Amino acid sequence: MKKAVILVSGGVDSSTILAMIQKMDYEIYAISFNYLQRHRIELEKIQLFIKDYHIKLHKIINIDLRSFGGSSLTDETIEVPKYSSANELKNDIPITYVPARNTIFLSYALGFAEIIGANDIFIGVNALDYSNYPDCRPEYIKSFENLANLATAAGVQGQRISIHAPLIQMTKAEIIAAGLKLGVDYSKTISCYDPSDVGISCGLCHACHLRLKGFAENFVNDPITYL
Amino acid sequence: MKKAVILVSGGVDSSTILAMIQKMDYEIYAISFNYLQRHRIELEKIQLFIKDYHIKLHKIINIDLRSFGGSSLTDETIEVPKYSSANELKNDIPITYVPARNTIFLSYALGFAEIIGANDIFIGVNALDYSNYPDCRPEYIKSFENLANLATAAGVQGQRISIHAPLIQMTKAEIIAAGLKLGVDYSKTISCYDPSDVGISCGLCHACHLRLKGFAENFVNDPITYL
Repeated sequence: MKKAVILVSGGVDSSTILAMIQKMDYEIYAISFNYLQRHRIELEKIQLFIKDYHIKLHKIINIDLRSFGGSSLTDETIEVPKYSSANELKNDIPITYVPARNTIFLSYALGFAEIIGANDIFIGVNALDYSNYPDCRPEYIKSFENLANLATAAGVQGQRISIHAPLIQMTKAEIIAAGLKLGVDYSKTISCYDPSDVGISCGLCHACHLRLKGFAENFVNDPITYL
Repeated sequence: MKKAVILVSGGVDSSTILAMIQKMDYEIYAISFNYLQRHRIELEKIQLFIKDYHIKLHKIINIDLRSFGGSSLTDETIEVPKYSSANELKNDIPITYVPARNTIFLSYALGFAEIIGANDIFIGVNALDYSNYPDCRPEYIKSFENLANLATAAGVQGQRISIHAPLIQMTKAEIIAAGLKLGVDYSKTISCYDPSDVGISCGLCHACHLRLKGFAENFVNDPITYL
């Protein structure tokens, strides 16, 4: 059986991918990161969510992104921007952007994949919906795939490592529609960048607005609680 | 003044690069990793070594590579291979290869560079001397540079990030010769993969043999202590 590594964050995107690849012929290895993110309560949600799926192994890696700072997700002194509606979301790179985060995440996933002998890595990045993160674009994913095949013993020895970003050209509404068809229980997910200590979403940050808009466009209530 | 990030490991290569770039017009930011490597005593050597140089900031990042294992450098149950002479060193990928390590290191360096506004990253990889690590080859470095420019806000906004590997085509003897000319104090460096608790080098591992051969070819005594 082929092995796949999937990066899971507890949010809508990676949770939907996990449901998608359940139907495929993979032994699934999940990987998550505790980077002392402001919203690290997402790690509890992930552990709850994945119980509904067949996963061979789930690793939570502790990594240090705090010592760099530079993002409102890793520096408590930088506030998470709040918006009164989704129409206010800007098209520039937001302060919630964590420099090189996806590159660091994918690098770990690559090391994990090499050790377990997996050639397929799945990541829930998305290029649409005002995300504006440079490391969520198709050309970035393609470039990392090229790197992966040069970086590893597996690549050198002629195996082909693939980085799959199946949601990259989908809107949040399309992703949620796909997940609902697959029976994803979104009540066990969280998207908020600035949740309360017990995991109640703020409803006002970039991530909350995108999520709420995605549910609204499906004429479905978002099953999680907001402040 | 331009800023540069340099990855420093306490070994011959990165120490030599640090001496090289002192002559250039950079404000230097150094970065090292505590990945619970078997030879993490190298971190003490680094801190001693860099006292001789002008460094704006030195960050030691704690990262988790142990939870993957798969290498004799990160898994104490896998022995570091020993050789009676440098002639025995093999041409295949050694068990001291840590999957995706340089990709993870460079990813952190990239995040650090982006936060401080540096466009130049220096790394002491070397493609010669039986190293056989896939992530030490010129095509790998080129590929990471390409990725860096797609991954970051800096890259997207038109700045050019460069990954410099000035030693990549030099032999260990050539590197040591260059360092000696620059006055590098190699007594404050360590290369051994399997040193004693107090930092005495084994003299028999891959890294020790390469280092000793490099000094011998310069007709200079290696100033460090061996078991």
